[in-house]
Amino acid sequence: MNQRSLGAEKLKAMHGFWRACNYLAAGMIYLRDNPLLSGPLKPEHIKQRLLGHWGSSPGLSFIYTHLNRLIVEQDVNAIFLAGPGHGAPGVLAPVYLEGRYSEVYPNKSEDEEGMRLFFKDFSFPGGIGSHCTPETPGSIHEGGELGYSISHAFGAAFDNPDLLVAVVVGDGEAETAPLATSWHSNKFLNPVRDGAVLPVLHLNGYKINNPSVLSRIPAEELTSLMQGYGWKPCFVEGDDPELMHQQMAAALDECMAEIRSIWSAAREEGVTERPLWPMIVLRSPKGWTGPAEVDGHQVEGSWRAHQVPLKGVRENEEKLHQLEAWLRSYGPEELFDAEGCLRPEFKTLTPKGERRMSANQHANGGRLRRMLRLPDFRRYALEFEKPGTVEAENTRPLGRFLRDIMSRNMHNFRVFSPDENSSNKLDDIYQASKKCWMAGRLPIDSDGGELSADGRVMEMLSEHTLEGWLEGYLLTGRHGFFSTYESFVHVIDSMFNQHAKWLAMSRDVDWRASVSSLNMLITSTVWRQDHNGFTHQDPGFLDLVVNKSPKVTRIYLPPDVNTLLVTANHCLNSHDYINVIVADKQNHLQYLDMDAAIKHCTKGLGIWSWASNDQGYEPDVVMACAGDVPTREALAATYLLRQHFPDLKVRFINVVDLYKLVPDSEHPHGLTDRDYDSLFTVDKPIIFNFHGYPWLIHRLAYRRTNHKNLHVRGYKEHGSINTPLELAIANEIDRFSLAIDVINRIPRLAVAGAHVKEQLRDQQLTCRQYAYEHGVDLPEATNWTWPL
Amino acid sequence: MNQRSLGAEKLKAMHGFWRACNYLAAGMIYLRDNPLLSGPLKPEHIKQRLLGHWGSSPGLSFIYTHLNRLIVEQDVNAIFLAGPGHGAPGVLAPVYLEGRYSEVYPNKSEDEEGMRLFFKDFSFPGGIGSHCTPETPGSIHEGGELGYSISHAFGAAFDNPDLLVAVVVGDGEAETAPLATSWHSNKFLNPVRDGAVLPVLHLNGYKINNPSVLSRIPAEELTSLMQGYGWKPCFVEGDDPELMHQQMAAALDECMAEIRSIWSAAREEGVTERPLWPMIVLRSPKGWTGPAEVDGHQVEGSWRAHQVPLKGVRENEEKLHQLEAWLRSYGPEELFDAEGCLRPEFKTLTPKGERRMSANQHANGGRLRRMLRLPDFRRYALEFEKPGTVEAENTRPLGRFLRDIMSRNMHNFRVFSPDENSSNKLDDIYQASKKCWMAGRLPIDSDGGELSADGRVMEMLSEHTLEGWLEGYLLTGRHGFFSTYESFVHVIDSMFNQHAKWLAMSRDVDWRASVSSLNMLITSTVWRQDHNGFTHQDPGFLDLVVNKSPKVTRIYLPPDVNTLLVTANHCLNSHDYINVIVADKQNHLQYLDMDAAIKHCTKGLGIWSWASNDQGYEPDVVMACAGDVPTREALAATYLLRQHFPDLKVRFINVVDLYKLVPDSEHPHGLTDRDYDSLFTVDKPIIFNFHGYPWLIHRLAYRRTNHKNLHVRGYKEHGSINTPLELAIANEIDRFSLAIDVINRIPRLAVAGAHVKEQLRDQQLTCRQYAYEHGVDLPEATNWTWPL
Repeated sequence: MNQRSLGAEKLKAMHGFWRACNYLAAGMIYLRDNPLLSGPLKPEHIKQRLLGHWGSSPGLSFIYTHLNRLIVEQDVNAIFLAGPGHGAPGVLAPVYLEGRYSEVYPNKSEDEEGMRLFFKDFSFPGGIGSHCTPETPGSIHEGGELGYSISHAFGAAFDNPDLLVAVVVGDGEAETAPLATSWHSNKFLNPVRDGAVLPVLHLNGYKINNPSVLSRIPAEELTSLMQGYGWKPCFVEGDDPELMHQQMAAALDECMAEIRSIWSAAREEGVTERPLWPMIVLRSPKGWTGPAEVDGHQVEGSWRAHQVPLKGVRENEEKLHQLEAWLRSYGPEELFDAEGCLRPEFKTLTPKGERRMSANQHANGGRLRRMLRLPDFRRYALEFEKPGTVEAENTRPLGRFLRDIMSRNMHNFRVFSPDENSSNKLDDIYQASKKCWMAGRLPIDSDGGELSADGRVMEMLSEHTLEGWLEGYLLTGRHGFFSTYESFVHVIDSMFNQHAKWLAMSRDVDWRASVSSLNMLITSTVWRQDHNGFTHQDPGFLDLVVNKSPKVTRIYLPPDVNTLLVTANHCLNSHDYINVIVADKQNHLQYLDMDAAIKHCTKGLGIWSWASNDQGYEPDVVMACAGDVPTREALAATYLLRQHFPDLKVRFINVVDLYKLVPDSEHPHGLTDRDYDSLFTVDKPIIFNFHGYPWLIHRLAYRRTNHKNLHVRGYKEHGSINTPLELAIANEIDRFSLAIDVINRIPRLAVAGAHVKEQLRDQQLTCRQYAYEHGVDLPEATNWTWPL
Repeated sequence: MNQRSLGAEKLKAMHGFWRACNYLAAGMIYLRDNPLLSGPLKPEHIKQRLLGHWGSSPGLSFIYTHLNRLIVEQDVNAIFLAGPGHGAPGVLAPVYLEGRYSEVYPNKSEDEEGMRLFFKDFSFPGGIGSHCTPETPGSIHEGGELGYSISHAFGAAFDNPDLLVAVVVGDGEAETAPLATSWHSNKFLNPVRDGAVLPVLHLNGYKINNPSVLSRIPAEELTSLMQGYGWKPCFVEGDDPELMHQQMAAALDECMAEIRSIWSAAREEGVTERPLWPMIVLRSPKGWTGPAEVDGHQVEGSWRAHQVPLKGVRENEEKLHQLEAWLRSYGPEELFDAEGCLRPEFKTLTPKGERRMSANQHANGGRLRRMLRLPDFRRYALEFEKPGTVEAENTRPLGRFLRDIMSRNMHNFRVFSPDENSSNKLDDIYQASKKCWMAGRLPIDSDGGELSADGRVMEMLSEHTLEGWLEGYLLTGRHGFFSTYESFVHVIDSMFNQHAKWLAMSRDVDWRASVSSLNMLITSTVWRQDHNGFTHQDPGFLDLVVNKSPKVTRIYLPPDVNTLLVTANHCLNSHDYINVIVADKQNHLQYLDMDAAIKHCTKGLGIWSWASNDQGYEPDVVMACAGDVPTREALAATYLLRQHFPDLKVRFINVVDLYKLVPDSEHPHGLTDRDYDSLFTVDKPIIFNFHGYPWLIHRLAYRRTNHKNLHVRGYKEHGSINTPLELAIANEIDRFSLAIDVINRIPRLAVAGAHVKEQLRDQQLTCRQYAYEHGVDLPEATNWTWPL
């Protein structure tokens, strides 16, 4: 295929740099001493635990080396994402050789002692992680869990018009579901305003113990596949380093030229069609340049090269010799001077300063982050006379707020949703920016299609791709907002886990600047799945969130328009968190005017005095709630109780900030025991009506004084095709069940309550029967408003 | 493209059947009475809540109708999977028209009253679900959450050599990650022994509010994409019903002929290459035959047809007329006789008996299920002298057990893992059956590649695809075993949720026979992530599992070889559950001989008397544990305590069956309070060393008498590159932390304990320092065995 003539000198320099990378990668896995092999290799130089992934490392540094040449020759602004981040040695090595590692971690200096520590600390307790962790200069993608490299890369390229995001996709990773659909991201990248993503599909042929699928399909199928995904593939294949260097250099030059021509066609000539972006298929041996054979088995070019290709080297002299021969094959004395510094002739192709991919500010995006310009959220407030008497769609004013945020931040804010912004009633956003769409257009689109190549609202039916885009966008210093159906946020549970881990680790990396929080609106919630039923009823994402570090997780359940606005404003102003906001899109009762909402959200939870009648008394019972539907039902239950038992003192507490429930020792938002006890009492029954699975509240509050009196209602997997009230009844979060619950907990109501309970059960039955007969809820039940 | 001549009569019959389907689909969404439109349509005939998805329904029944012709003409054994299961009306309608619905639900008879009920009950409380739920005859795929249709289809086709699995893929679904990679399933289907999957990619052009990506890429890209995935696409495109009928009939005939020729080439001529299987791209308007325009907006052929195309028909007379005109456009009086039964001329192409896709036994797989032939698991027992003195890899004997299960059940058992059976030390399985592999082969594969077209071990680096295959395999009456890395089981959280919901609903469907349990081994666990670190540390899947119905969820944490064997045997014998087994693959101490293991697992938890010294006394403290590493540390802590305080009475409890901790009212495995209290005492401190996140134990046990004294240790997101013991120390599940914990809880040790605690802290520090210095754990700590 492509040929190019790298001059002999350049070729020698590049090959030397790459050999040095491979030497370091192997050194990291094996050596704790004698880093330059100044003397014979001895068992005591070898680490006791040999850990790491050699297999993809040489390929990674091969690509890195070639990108360096491109950057230097053409002054390219580029960052590097390693999909196979397990092969961190292949990334850490060039990062060290270009001097960045030593700048950031001065004890890993560019000399023998620095190299020794660099080797020793790799995959070592308290040392350097074995993936491209947040500690890795230049990394925004750890590559621990596979599948998100391309979507992260696109997130980085959006709104960075001169940025080249080079992303290596492992052929193992390429089999994962998220990666397979993320190739389609090219339908959402606009060359006028966005940079470019250059994927390098690295076919090294094998996974842990198996061939990879894409390396074992015919070349024409692979070409078709990439073309079908809308890419123009360019192949670099072989194992002879010299030929491969020439091919790779030619391929990169060609791709860069195509990218520049796409950019200029779009920017200067006004071409609006989706271009065919170039990508590279690099087919090279797994464990390239490593041991060809070990114990009679082929290792280079086989799955046996995946982790540590030579084992037992401390214990086995022959293996030790084999390792030494392998390491010496790179010629360390030729590559490094006596002090252990890479010789200048191999350093010539290293970019300087922030052109180094390891020092590019885009990969430490917090450094580039500008504060979001937020309009005053109070402006979107819903006004009404009395709490609990008016209904409104909770998410709609938020859509207006997002619209105006968008128009004030047209270059560093995007909104993400899997085809659901309209369904989630956030569609006012389209007044400021349409849905980004670079695929084909039809005349009918002009009728409400809301599509535009300029759009900054990102919609694709892949939660994985959206979440990946958003993460990449945030990690490169921008802001975003993601809304998704509650039950299907589980699709990205694992991505949430990984991002939370990334953020938590980043907190301890002093050179990483803060990035904007990942803000998720979980909507179309369990209680209003009218069109769908059981499959769409799952509020369990929160159970996952609470397992992650309290340094990064926040959960809010605003029950109405104004509390949602306050919450969203707070979250959009924050950094380094994952903020999970749960709020349904349907009509709901409105409780708090804007002033009250601000006060309530600032405290995170509180007594609603207008709904309580315990002023000046110890309450008989605490009625607590979190979430929109549960709040309405708790309120209706409170009213039923007060109607039947005017002397009963009910304290009504609404919780917006879920972490208030845990002790302050467990989460920075946690209430002190003293504050908690003064709200929830130390001995009165608490009925807690919760949006999610009820057990979560126990998990949060089990240490509290009054936990034995805490009775939680929530979703218990009782669902099907239901009306809203009927679903509430099936899970016992409805007003009647709650009121009965209270009566049961208060001994002095035992006698008087018996009759009331019967009445309540009758009313509940009437509601159910009405739903079963008419297919809708009893109007007087659903039209209920707070009458006091 | 393809032309065919459907005779006029057949065409008329098919078109009539399809019109009847469309009539029913619309009727289901709108009508609660007047099902045959015997008189004018009135507001009171209309449901109050209009729910359902019209958009993809006509396309679904179009495909169904055509498959029926194929089945009848060629006596094909076929089942039908609707990826867009939201369009259930398009499936329920033909199921009703071919008589199956009435057989199963006699009140939905084939007459006017039956039709009325069929309409009224659709998407109605207590009625017919709005997706292809388990209540739908012929369904093994609900299509509630999108993405799994193709992988389910392949699971159904495996080992069913004469089965045609027709699967409709929505173009919305096609954007999801799981669907995008599942096309590659064709590299794992062997035409010698497996049936065929015929995907119909249904491009109706739109999702909820957006065009779909695949409907808006050029035809040549779409063709390339499908060819790149290894399929041979056949296009059926248009909107004129007559032309479309001809095209579709020709396409199906062609595809079926190709499938038969692939089958016979493989089976009779010995062709071993992977064939190019045919698939169909059906491009037809969304909401086909529905209202062309509503309120001045195009509806048919637009996203506006997604759910209910005409709204407000009860309230608006003009809309009511429009609805009536639409319904009458199908000519109900021509289609149905006066009694409401489909006229015989339209029923001619309906298959009979079990050839109906709605009555095919494969779609009620429990009916075909044969018991798994299990060898005696005792045969694989590990023998040893004394508890806690020998180490072994816990999963290896399980691999032997699975191997022998495989060889006894070569046609109805498969083992699934994402490239990890070897890594998980289950590789003895390959002695019985290799990894299934239909992609390219190289000579090097003969060196331990373990690949074979005949293999029944399924490995692909996509947890989604594997889980989907397994679900499809189980739902068609077979057996399987899935092993996966603990932290990445979160990749399929949502699939777990959906399968759990499917199983829970199926329990209430009396005609559905029991299917085998989904057995998952969660391994390569949090405590032993030597090569990887923080990204691979997440034991939170269990927190998700416990939210699902207690009818279907089971969790086991066997701590050693023999308990794992007992557990696996139990799970493989069970049905209708999801069994989650957590067991690490590394070397672990062995505790129970086989007899003891059987007794222990049968009880699910119990006192290990050999590790306890409270015989005949009330214990001073209960040391409880669940999981392999936590058990070892708890045991070591117990020994430390007994060494320092010989008079201290420690009761040692190990928990295998996690649900034993919840009250019997909450889960069928739950202990009664009485039994729980007698084990865990009512007032003594309990230190519980847990494998997962510690809060889960509180969530399970918060109702227990002695909950206030329950102190749980577990993983708390403190991790990086760690040695095993150092990681345990970081999360305080190590022996020293546990022993200190106990001392702190026992007032009478306050004085004597102070000195001991200091000693323990010193020992802990020594361990940490050793790890930091040597990169491995202190040998005397890790080689620790139970000395008593």
